[in-house]
Amino acid sequence: MKPLTTLEKLTDSLRCLPGVGAKSAARMSLHLLQHNRAGGLALAEALTEAMNRIGHCEQCRNYTEQPLCSLCADQRRDASVICVVETPSDVAAIESSRSFQGQYHVLMGHLSPLDGIGPDDIGLDKLEQRVQQGGVAEIILATGSTVEGEATAHYIGGRMAALGVGVSRLARGVPMGGELDYVDSSTIAQALSGRRPLG
Amino acid sequence: MKPLTTLEKLTDSLRCLPGVGAKSAARMSLHLLQHNRAGGLALAEALTEAMNRIGHCEQCRNYTEQPLCSLCADQRRDASVICVVETPSDVAAIESSRSFQGQYHVLMGHLSPLDGIGPDDIGLDKLEQRVQQGGVAEIILATGSTVEGEATAHYIGGRMAALGVGVSRLARGVPMGGELDYVDSSTIAQALSGRRPLG
Repeated sequence: MKPLTTLEKLTDSLRCLPGVGAKSAARMSLHLLQHNRAGGLALAEALTEAMNRIGHCEQCRNYTEQPLCSLCADQRRDASVICVVETPSDVAAIESSRSFQGQYHVLMGHLSPLDGIGPDDIGLDKLEQRVQQGGVAEIILATGSTVEGEATAHYIGGRMAALGVGVSRLARGVPMGGELDYVDSSTIAQALSGRRPLG
Repeated sequence: MKPLTTLEKLTDSLRCLPGVGAKSAARMSLHLLQHNRAGGLALAEALTEAMNRIGHCEQCRNYTEQPLCSLCADQRRDASVICVVETPSDVAAIESSRSFQGQYHVLMGHLSPLDGIGPDDIGLDKLEQRVQQGGVAEIILATGSTVEGEATAHYIGGRMAALGVGVSRLARGVPMGGELDYVDSSTIAQALSGRRPLG
């Protein structure tokens, strides 16, 4: 086999990006070469910097290049409420709602015994330490509403309740702007069983 | 405005790739950080190398890091037939058919007067020089079957014919494996008008 050319190497490397196959990778290579070499070089620098410098926050496990992430380091955040989410994008989603002032614990996935992902891999030891150090009044379980997310929430809920801390789960129901005939039936069932008195 | 974090910079830079929006860029950043830092670093290296080292072949204008691309440097290729294509991916497509042994001229686009892309921008001066140096018997126009591709082929055809070299255009008709009721009507019209006697 011939050694790869520089262009083939680039196309090949681009396929490490999720959702990028052979065709898109070739298109990306040619686009960068023809229209945006400066952008390509900037991307190379951003990649090197990010891959080498970004680690996990010592407290919440979110990505950061500091020992503590900006949210954990922010003294104005309420350290008595910890919201448990699966991924850093979940943190971003909740932050963009501007309706949560507490701190986070990022699992970086969910429990998955078949893949060998157990409680320590999602940092539960760290979360327990935070609770045992005191000052935490409530754990909000904001894992996904999937089978794995539910199972993970159930497991964490059990361990946290054993430590005597309050545990809650995100409400489930009809999403804002959701027309009833477009909402799936299990969501409607959840919304009915979780109905609340008016006013 | 706060300065961007390293992670935000990476997500931002990924958007220079065609077809990558804010959501996919965020997903790519997190995927690389969590699952494939080595791949991310390799991509950074491939990008730097490609952006800095890849230039155009002196003869056919295809991308290469040498003065001549591998196809132009290959003595076994037939230098008397030049296939004119729009992009480097077209070269790859024709090469994968293994049915062409000649050389190429890569336009790197097509004529587009409104965008200020004239004959010199698609390297026609270079192509004319090659023809004038002698030894070229045929120019195959393999630009796309789009309005711009046809116009470009028409223009190049005129200029090449003036130099006394043979000019041909890729055949148009029903694609292999194409069922007639799925083929568009203008392709059927082309296939009918270009019909050939059997045997």
